[in-house]
Amino acid sequence: MPRVVVDVMLKPEILDPQGQAVANALPRLGVSDVASVRIGRRIEIEFTGEPDLDRAREIADKLLANPVIEDFTVHVVTADENAGAHS
Amino acid sequence: MPRVVVDVMLKPEILDPQGQAVANALPRLGVSDVASVRIGRRIEIEFTGEPDLDRAREIADKLLANPVIEDFTVHVVTADENAGAHS
Repeated sequence: MPRVVVDVMLKPEILDPQGQAVANALPRLGVSDVASVRIGRRIEIEFTGEPDLDRAREIADKLLANPVIEDFTVHVVTADENAGAHS
Repeated sequence: MPRVVVDVMLKPEILDPQGQAVANALPRLGVSDVASVRIGRRIEIEFTGEPDLDRAREIADKLLANPVIEDFTVHVVTADENAGAHS
């Protein structure tokens, strides 16, 4: 079933201590070629009928993201795409 | 700059109280056509050189996801795609 995905990320100018903590842990795993890590949220919304991007945008704006410190993007993902992305 | 995105979501059989809370709040916004909401994490990893999917998968497996309750997918996002997805 197609679903709408809302990706919420901190704005680039906002510090991300959680991502920074992950980045700082990487050398201990032997990983030294990572410049930065940013951690945000991915929200999957399943509609009963047709996926509705405008509706999803409204939900994201009112309920899922804090527009002062976060940006969000909205897109439709089909079941096929979902399976293809798995790894 | 191309970056690797790791999407971490709870396995479908694991309850998601946070997503459930959002779903329960939707009727108050006048939204009644949403079947379910699932909330996960989106991690953006920027490499100093070429984006390295295998490396990102290793980082996700060891540091970002709990394989007992979470699934993750890894994919490369170019700057263009990023801009195109904005809305």
